[in-house]
Amino acid sequence: MSAEAKLAELGLELPPAPKPMGVYKPMVIIDNMVYVSGHGPLKSDGTLIVGRVGADMDQEAAYQAARQTGLAVLATLRAGLGSLDKVKRIVKTLGMVNSEPDFLQHPAVINGFSDLFAEVYGEENGVGARSAVGMGVLPGNIPVEVEAIFELQS
Amino acid sequence: MSAEAKLAELGLELPPAPKPMGVYKPMVIIDNMVYVSGHGPLKSDGTLIVGRVGADMDQEAAYQAARQTGLAVLATLRAGLGSLDKVKRIVKTLGMVNSEPDFLQHPAVINGFSDLFAEVYGEENGVGARSAVGMGVLPGNIPVEVEAIFELQS
Amino acid sequence: MSAEAKLAELGLELPPAPKPMGVYKPMVIIDNMVYVSGHGPLKSDGTLIVGRVGADMDQEAAYQAARQTGLAVLATLRAGLGSLDKVKRIVKTLGMVNSEPDFLQHPAVINGFSDLFAEVYGEENGVGARSAVGMGVLPGNIPVEVEAIFELQS
Repeated sequence: MSAEAKLAELGLELPPAPKPMGVYKPMVIIDNMVYVSGHGPLKSDGTLIVGRVGADMDQEAAYQAARQTGLAVLATLRAGLGSLDKVKRIVKTLGMVNSEPDFLQHPAVINGFSDLFAEVYGEENGVGARSAVGMGVLPGNIPVEVEAIFELQS
Repeated sequence: MSAEAKLAELGLELPPAPKPMGVYKPMVIIDNMVYVSGHGPLKSDGTLIVGRVGADMDQEAAYQAARQTGLAVLATLRAGLGSLDKVKRIVKTLGMVNSEPDFLQHPAVINGFSDLFAEVYGEENGVGARSAVGMGVLPGNIPVEVEAIFELQS
Repeated sequence: MSAEAKLAELGLELPPAPKPMGVYKPMVIIDNMVYVSGHGPLKSDGTLIVGRVGADMDQEAAYQAARQTGLAVLATLRAGLGSLDKVKRIVKTLGMVNSEPDFLQHPAVINGFSDLFAEVYGEENGVGARSAVGMGVLPGNIPVEVEAIFELQS
C-alpha cells in the first residue's frame, strides 16, 4: 500500500505545511536525498503545542507532540514533493526533546514521531537511524523538534 | 555574481581558518558534498566570542556571534576548497545556541549565520534546511556553534 | 593494516552490538554511506555507563565513556556490515555530552571516541568532521551519546 493510501486509511489529518520561522527552507533536495529542517508539533489550526516535558507536560503528552511533529514533516514532504509516495524511506532522525534535566525517557517520546513513520511507510522503510536526546530548551518552548533525512524513490 | 566577488563587494573580512580544537578535521569532502565541523564565533584576532545568551549577552549580540560563526565557516571552506566559488549551495545547518532555559529566540539568533550565507550565495543557493535549538552549554562557553553541509559545484 | 587487524593488535574487546532502545535501526546504508544511530557507552556486560559529567563523573571518566561509545559503534558496524574493513572512512560525528552547565570541555571528552577511530582507521580515514556539545540531558542519564556517518569502501 502506498504512503498516501495508508495515510488515508489511517484517517490522519495533516496540518498546513509549516512556514519557515527564520532564514531557511522547509526542505532541500540533493540527488536522491531530502534534508528536512527541524519541525515542531504544528497542529491543524496552525498553532504549535508548547511546554517543557517533565514540567508542563508528561511523557504521554510529549509522545503525542512528537507524533504531531511527524504529521508536520509529512505536510512539508507532500508540499515539497507533490506526493508522499515520492519518498522511498526515512534515513535518519534527530529527535530533540525540551525536557527537565531529570526527565530521561527521550526515546519513548520520540517514538511518537517514529511510530507514525512506521505506520505510513512500513516497518522496513519507515524505520531509520535515530538519535533522541534532551536539549537545553527549544524555540518558543515547544516540547519536541525533529529534523530528518529521507531517500527518494529512484 | 560569484561568492568571492560578493564577499569582496560586501567588504567582509574572514578570520583565519580555525584550527581543530580536538581530534577532528574542519571539513570532509565526500563526492559532491562537504561536511563542515561545528564552528564557533572566531574573530579576526583569533579569539572566540564567549558568553551565554540570556545571561552574558542579549539576542542582538548573539545574532552577531552567529554571523561571526558564519565568517569562520567561510574561512574553512576557502581554506579547504581554494575558493568559495567551488560551493554550489548550502544544504543543511544545525545551529546550536548556548542559552538560558528561558531564552526562546534561537531561530532569530541563528539568522545571523543564515543571513550571511543568503548575502554571499543568494536567496536560492544561500538558504538551506536548518534547525536552530538551545543546548545545555557549548565548549568554552561560546554562545553559538554551527555545523553544516554544503553541495559542491559539479 | 586493516581495521579488523588493527583492532586485534590493540586487543580491544567490542561489546555486544546494541539493540535499539526505541523505534529505530542501529544503522541505515544509503549508496556508499552508513548513517549510524546515536550510541551510548555500552559495556561488554551489556550495561551502560551512567552519570552526568561534572556532577557524577569527571573529564577523564567521561573520556573513557566516549571511548566505550566508540566500541559500541564499532560493534554495530561489524554486525551490520560483516566486517569493519568494509568502512573506508569516518565522515562526520555529532558528539553529545550530558554535562553540568559549568562543564566546558566537551571536545576533550569526545576525543575518547575520536582517538579510538584514529587508532583503528588511521589518522587520515579515522578522523572526520565533528561537533562536540553539551546537552540538557541524555536518555537514561548516560554521559555521552554519539551519532556518526561513515563512507563505505567502493
